[in-house]
Amino acid sequence: LHEELMADNPLYTIMQARSVVIAGASNNFMKMGSIQALNLLHGGFRGEVLFLHPTEKTVFDHPAYRTPAELPFVPEVALLTTPTRVTPGLLDGLGEHGVRHAVITTAGFREMGPEGARLEAELLEIAVRRGIRFVGPNCIGVLNATEGMNLTVVPYTDAPGHMGLISQSGTYVSQTMPYLRENGIRYSQAISVGNATSIDVVDCLDYLGDDPETAAIAMYIEGVQRGREFLAAATRVGRTKPLVALYVGGSSAGARSSQSHTGSLGSPDRLFDGVCAQAGILRASTVDEMFGWANALANMPLPRGRRMAILTHSGGPATSMADACERWGLEVPEFSPALQTRIRAFLEPTASAKNPVDLTFVMGQESFVDKIPEVLFASDEIDGVLVHGMMDTGFALEMHKVAGHMLGISREDFIKPMEFDLTHLLELPARYGKPLVASNFIREDHAAQTFRERGVPLFRTPEAAVKAMAALARAGEFRKRWPASD
Amino acid sequence: LHEELMADNPLYTIMQARSVVIAGASNNFMKMGSIQALNLLHGGFRGEVLFLHPTEKTVFDHPAYRTPAELPFVPEVALLTTPTRVTPGLLDGLGEHGVRHAVITTAGFREMGPEGARLEAELLEIAVRRGIRFVGPNCIGVLNATEGMNLTVVPYTDAPGHMGLISQSGTYVSQTMPYLRENGIRYSQAISVGNATSIDVVDCLDYLGDDPETAAIAMYIEGVQRGREFLAAATRVGRTKPLVALYVGGSSAGARSSQSHTGSLGSPDRLFDGVCAQAGILRASTVDEMFGWANALANMPLPRGRRMAILTHSGGPATSMADACERWGLEVPEFSPALQTRIRAFLEPTASAKNPVDLTFVMGQESFVDKIPEVLFASDEIDGVLVHGMMDTGFALEMHKVAGHMLGISREDFIKPMEFDLTHLLELPARYGKPLVASNFIREDHAAQTFRERGVPLFRTPEAAVKAMAALARAGEFRKRWPASD
Repeated sequence: LHEELMADNPLYTIMQARSVVIAGASNNFMKMGSIQALNLLHGGFRGEVLFLHPTEKTVFDHPAYRTPAELPFVPEVALLTTPTRVTPGLLDGLGEHGVRHAVITTAGFREMGPEGARLEAELLEIAVRRGIRFVGPNCIGVLNATEGMNLTVVPYTDAPGHMGLISQSGTYVSQTMPYLRENGIRYSQAISVGNATSIDVVDCLDYLGDDPETAAIAMYIEGVQRGREFLAAATRVGRTKPLVALYVGGSSAGARSSQSHTGSLGSPDRLFDGVCAQAGILRASTVDEMFGWANALANMPLPRGRRMAILTHSGGPATSMADACERWGLEVPEFSPALQTRIRAFLEPTASAKNPVDLTFVMGQESFVDKIPEVLFASDEIDGVLVHGMMDTGFALEMHKVAGHMLGISREDFIKPMEFDLTHLLELPARYGKPLVASNFIREDHAAQTFRERGVPLFRTPEAAVKAMAALARAGEFRKRWPASD
Repeated sequence: LHEELMADNPLYTIMQARSVVIAGASNNFMKMGSIQALNLLHGGFRGEVLFLHPTEKTVFDHPAYRTPAELPFVPEVALLTTPTRVTPGLLDGLGEHGVRHAVITTAGFREMGPEGARLEAELLEIAVRRGIRFVGPNCIGVLNATEGMNLTVVPYTDAPGHMGLISQSGTYVSQTMPYLRENGIRYSQAISVGNATSIDVVDCLDYLGDDPETAAIAMYIEGVQRGREFLAAATRVGRTKPLVALYVGGSSAGARSSQSHTGSLGSPDRLFDGVCAQAGILRASTVDEMFGWANALANMPLPRGRRMAILTHSGGPATSMADACERWGLEVPEFSPALQTRIRAFLEPTASAKNPVDLTFVMGQESFVDKIPEVLFASDEIDGVLVHGMMDTGFALEMHKVAGHMLGISREDFIKPMEFDLTHLLELPARYGKPLVASNFIREDHAAQTFRERGVPLFRTPEAAVKAMAALARAGEFRKRWPASD
């Protein structure tokens, strides 16, 4: 039954469109529709792109047509970024000529009060009559990073990843792109649902739940319209893919703001908490947590328990991590004498092998990168590894900035020999089925960059890394209670 | 009495040294002492720099001497980054020749067990006998940004700011430099106390409490050695300068890690909480909060109440901020009809003026930057202003990355006309005595950069901005109970 239902899910066609017609773009690249068009044309999309435009013959060197009737073939998806009042009529015209799927970013509907609600009802009535399903209106578009299809207003320049996003805010699918890039957080697909008039969070959850590239799903939610169906979908999808929700409609201030944003009505926090408990949704309290946790869950195995090893070369972050572990329900067991002996073989005499393992700022390829992590991952005393400060070229880069003129060596020649070979380390999480979560204050660094590119969750602070590991542990416990094979 | 005591505070001489002798640096710039020397020589220090070195005649083109006896004059401060075993003897020799102040970054003392503790006792005995006071050992050095004196291992390249730091971790005074730079967080002075053998957190608190450039103080604490004196100093200083503490010695895992880090013993969390309540210390739970809050407190007036205005052009962050306000004890009052009318004059018809004020992605100099903020700051309905997404060139930069070749215009020419003039906005907090706290997902942006340079606290997420504002509000309430003039 489920597969049949999913076959009807309009997001299959929308998110994997082979042809898109854009209405609302022009050769003036400062308009929203034009920006979306540029992102589609330059984001790696391999399908066909057509334009609707009242006067232009081409838009960005692609053919433009005056009306839906003139289109040379029926495009799979229409992207509408048109003035509010013309949008219903345009959707009708597209439907008349066979278009059955759309993304409507145009705003000015339900969120604007009674007149907007009337227009939105008209839009829905047209869609139902024409057999059209659409994302939006009042959304920022959709992104399928796996297919290079970007219908949002901000470029996505990273390689595709394994985190899906469903968002009732367009901002979290657009303005956050540079933020995600800086943090090595990568999308499989992202959907801004807007007013969710035709396609809602439940449809998205069902769709991303079945997407083979999506391993975990982040959700920004202001209010759930179909509560029962949401719970059912979350419960189903949550069995195989960890879910993280940032829910902001539970407070009175959040609810009022949400009302004028997407016109949605939130329910009290405790109701949403009940849904989370039942479906195993991890509830984030900040956008940082939502993205950071979902990305970690999408890239790392779940820990089988709460016993963490902490590896670093700095006592402060070691202590911060240990303290944060205890505060957020993780354990930092003192290693057995046998394990300490194995670790101590790679340490300076002044270093600590108890857990945290503190190399005291002696950071060698062999000890820090190869041998000690292997010993930790292989040990049956721990379920996951937290690393702070695995950096190689970052310090030297800082020094070259102030004293480069004295060193008589180019920046590149200076730092190149310092690069760690992280190949072995990057294989350990999958080999041992244990997560690796990292933090580092220095971002401009070869090792940090490698972590970001290769899916090792890299946080800006020790505490954020620990909090993400605690989320992984909770997801692991939920998975044990509800094995995916049930 | 207090002034007399302070006159004896050795940190006056150390932090404002006019001459420094460095032992442990050489012309091999990959050694820790050499790196510290380079930071001193290239950080803007205007005092004299000498070196002690067994064989070299000069170090980085500055004169080097074999023994303390050969120094041409008595330097005010000695920086020791020497092997552990030779350090006590060297301190003795420096003391014999008149040196009375030192920073000892050398590690391998109390934190290493009984043998190290014996060496540390020897160090202290020599210092007492010679009348020397010293920072460390096992620290990362000190920074006086106001004086351009950097004795740490990482360059400080920003302009001086107004946040002081006292840290029992060297990492938070070194590895965090790039992190602080990225976030526009600037130091007045920073002290890594290490094992705090001769100069401890209490001395630092007294000293920074009287520093005219320091407006707020961050503290990273693993354990307090002189509890009574700490409480007294914090209570005194806290009357005029907000204090933020990240205390990590209260959990059993934190205490164990702290023991092998600086050899300090923590007390339970609830004892430290009691101290915080009495002295008005804001307790941060992450290093992000410690730095972010202290920097906000150092740069913004304290709010007189908890009523916040939220200004943005994105409904998602508006709702996130509103929800976070309520969660963290701030109010987001719906504006009076009169105030809404005044704001609506500058809004598009689709925008909301209720609070949050949501411009719906129409971001003009007049509405977003000049007029609406002025109306908000001037209103007696609110005590502080939260702004998300005040950016100008960031979006265009993103677009230029993907479509620059189509635009036929250089990046600089493309973005320059988009720059906001923030002059008026930046004057508002001081004029109205109300704080401005901002967040933005896009960092590479002229407005964001201006905020960072001009001390407007700029956070990476809406929630982090709200949490900092909540800290400002708590500091404001503490100030009301204990007016600075008492």
